[in-house]
Amino acid sequence: MSQPEVAVANPLEPAPTEPAPHEHGYTANKEAYLRRLKRIEGQVRGIARMVDEDKYCIDILTQVAAVTKALHAVSLGLVEEHIGHCVVGAASEPNPELRAEAIDFKVKEATDAIGRLLR
Amino acid sequence: MSQPEVAVANPLEPAPTEPAPHEHGYTANKEAYLRRLKRIEGQVRGIARMVDEDKYCIDILTQVAAVTKALHAVSLGLVEEHIGHCVVGAASEPNPELRAEAIDFKVKEATDAIGRLLR
Amino acid sequence: MSQPEVAVANPLEPAPTEPAPHEHGYTANKEAYLRRLKRIEGQVRGIARMVDEDKYCIDILTQVAAVTKALHAVSLGLVEEHIGHCVVGAASEPNPELRAEAIDFKVKEATDAIGRLLR
Amino acid sequence: MSQPEVAVANPLEPAPTEPAPHEHGYTANKEAYLRRLKRIEGQVRGIARMVDEDKYCIDILTQVAAVTKALHAVSLGLVEEHIGHCVVGAASEPNPELRAEAIDFKVKEATDAIGRLLR
Repeated sequence: MSQPEVAVANPLEPAPTEPAPHEHGYTANKEAYLRRLKRIEGQVRGIARMVDEDKYCIDILTQVAAVTKALHAVSLGLVEEHIGHCVVGAASEPNPELRAEAIDFKVKEATDAIGRLLR
Repeated sequence: MSQPEVAVANPLEPAPTEPAPHEHGYTANKEAYLRRLKRIEGQVRGIARMVDEDKYCIDILTQVAAVTKALHAVSLGLVEEHIGHCVVGAASEPNPELRAEAIDFKVKEATDAIGRLLR
Repeated sequence: MSQPEVAVANPLEPAPTEPAPHEHGYTANKEAYLRRLKRIEGQVRGIARMVDEDKYCIDILTQVAAVTKALHAVSLGLVEEHIGHCVVGAASEPNPELRAEAIDFKVKEATDAIGRLLR
Repeated sequence: MSQPEVAVANPLEPAPTEPAPHEHGYTANKEAYLRRLKRIEGQVRGIARMVDEDKYCIDILTQVAAVTKALHAVSLGLVEEHIGHCVVGAASEPNPELRAEAIDFKVKEATDAIGRLLR
């Protein structure tokens, strides 16, 4: 269904040849995100083990809800850093015309992402 | 936060010495659930890789939303099988008094689990 | 978008000429549901008033979240009563063949409804 | 539970004596929001009528899901306008120290609001 490896090209992102191509909102907290995702991966593996060991369905559902919650927390962190970094970054573009366009693009993008989380 | 390995004891479940202690609603589809969870585990690993490679935050959010959706689908399958198996099983208890109690217990349990998914 | 007045015909429901056509899971708590929905309606009106008075968007969002939560609680109550009443009712059908079919129908219907709430 | 009328004081909002105290992100679309909320209010009233007329629980749940979805759409619109207006507004504060603080405040506020929608 999803293709984590294929990043959609983003015209407003710095080109890959720039000196700091990797500067995202979450970069400062990268290690923390990786640890949280590692833990979520372990939780998903734990759920598979519960299914394999024929654990009670309600207990499995409880774990699925916990993983969903943990993913929501990760999402919110990313949203916060996206708004504070990418949207605010667009707002500091000196050329007013480009700025308005960049802001609109980033805000729309953020809202669409939030909409996908809400669904 | 969560402890996938520790299943809460359930007084209405068959005791572990009974011949078929593992008969749950999802047992018939166990392999399918394990495959889906394996795929979700891979998706979570893919998200960690995206973070590690400093991919664009919005693309990461899209993947997180996809995993949340996949987990919802797993939950719904488990809920369906729980209602069709455990709740309906309780409804077939011959002793009317035990039956009413068992149904109430199972329905409450299912609704609480759904409530945790909605939150 | 939605048409509250048009109830989809349901082949497994009692025909309208039967003596008690209105017996649903929630009937016993009808007054409580009506009170809760009245309150939700008032909350929605309060949100409109906030928009009209140009209140701060974050405060409006907080109220929208509260209404969503109140609707979730109503949904969960209906789901609980649907499972305990309609699904369990189907399970008490004496003819085994009709019973299996009725249970499948009701369980599927409940799960679909829960799925719409999750989305 | 909630108090739509009581707006939490916001230290970063313009004081009520300023010439344009009402300029929010959603102000331009105020009429559209009021229409949408009016429709949602009618939908909630429709659900109450369904309960009153003992409609089938699943049909009621379908309507509740539709209202929840409509509220999500309203939320997303408000979030979009909040980010594009209030967050970006904070980013245009000329004093760099006040700016950083104002941005942090607005971004945190937006993320908290989104978090309440996700729960």
